[in-house]
Amino acid sequence: MNLNSNRLIEDAMNEFGRLPGIGRKTALRFVLYLLKQKSDDVELFASTFTRLRNGIKYCSSCNNITEQTLCEICSNNKRDHSIVCVVEDIRDVFAIENTNQFNGVYHVLGGIINPMDGIGPKDIKVDSLADRVAKNEIKEIIMALDATMEGDTTVFYIFKRLKDFDIKFTTIARGISIGDDLEYADEATLGRSILNRVPYENSLVK
Amino acid sequence: MNLNSNRLIEDAMNEFGRLPGIGRKTALRFVLYLLKQKSDDVELFASTFTRLRNGIKYCSSCNNITEQTLCEICSNNKRDHSIVCVVEDIRDVFAIENTNQFNGVYHVLGGIINPMDGIGPKDIKVDSLADRVAKNEIKEIIMALDATMEGDTTVFYIFKRLKDFDIKFTTIARGISIGDDLEYADEATLGRSILNRVPYENSLVK
Repeated sequence: MNLNSNRLIEDAMNEFGRLPGIGRKTALRFVLYLLKQKSDDVELFASTFTRLRNGIKYCSSCNNITEQTLCEICSNNKRDHSIVCVVEDIRDVFAIENTNQFNGVYHVLGGIINPMDGIGPKDIKVDSLADRVAKNEIKEIIMALDATMEGDTTVFYIFKRLKDFDIKFTTIARGISIGDDLEYADEATLGRSILNRVPYENSLVK
Repeated sequence: MNLNSNRLIEDAMNEFGRLPGIGRKTALRFVLYLLKQKSDDVELFASTFTRLRNGIKYCSSCNNITEQTLCEICSNNKRDHSIVCVVEDIRDVFAIENTNQFNGVYHVLGGIINPMDGIGPKDIKVDSLADRVAKNEIKEIIMALDATMEGDTTVFYIFKRLKDFDIKFTTIARGISIGDDLEYADEATLGRSILNRVPYENSLVK
């Protein structure tokens, strides 16, 4: 007798196991949890995900989630539509919005180029970004991707793709995190933070 | 704008957040994963859990999962029905079965007594265990619960509950894990392993 002996449990474990970072042991914990819940609660649990998948819409301009055609950022006239911040997914939009430091608009790629996972330029929203740059008056593209090899590859690819347009192409600053001890910073970050040093008055957190 | 601004995402995050050990960040990762999947795949994902909850049955004798009235262990005549191993949940049944060292039958409590989580004796299958001991010829009860305060409390409660029956009441051995260094073992385990020492010939792994 083993875990595979019950088809229903095996199926449910496989479905949970498809979620990112969930292995078989955790999947089994989830299954046992569901088995302890009331039938109605499990019904609600399951139906929420189909409602999510079928109900969600994406902004026709920036690919952010929305309930209308345009998201609330793209339809806001007080925002600067000539500055576009390119991010990986909607989590980054939320994170940057929470800083209250950015008043431009976004472009959500929906992923970054990652050959190991089989994600190429065609799988992320680069075409629609190029299209947007061609058709609108955009002065600056800020690349706000992870400071990883995949992030850097994606920035490089988009840079090559957009280099013929007359736009300023920037990336968010890499450097020592606020509150971090200098002696524990890695060399690459520390080196970059010296190269990209800023005038003292710009370094003050407002 | 924040994460709560979209009701569908918020609902799905809340449902994922009910799973054990899943916080809001992980729940959001799961939501973003689902949004990238095909609609049919999400449909299958969701329906699997309702099928699980509504389809699963429990053995009328030991409370193990099954597809019939009796599970495959309880309905097996080659097993020794006079020795009952009491475990917390079906994971423990699988774990003990995989050792190939036990040929008795099981009793699945479906939890252990945990006042902090509001789980009392009424919430676990102790009544059906007492009933089983009263109605069947059972010689030995082996308590195979976690070596935690909650596990020990449950063992003590069940011991008091069954002490008037003429049965041998044992617990699985506590001691140094095979492959472990003695110097890193905690004092309680090491002390117990000395008290419960066994003749050399019994200590050999077969």
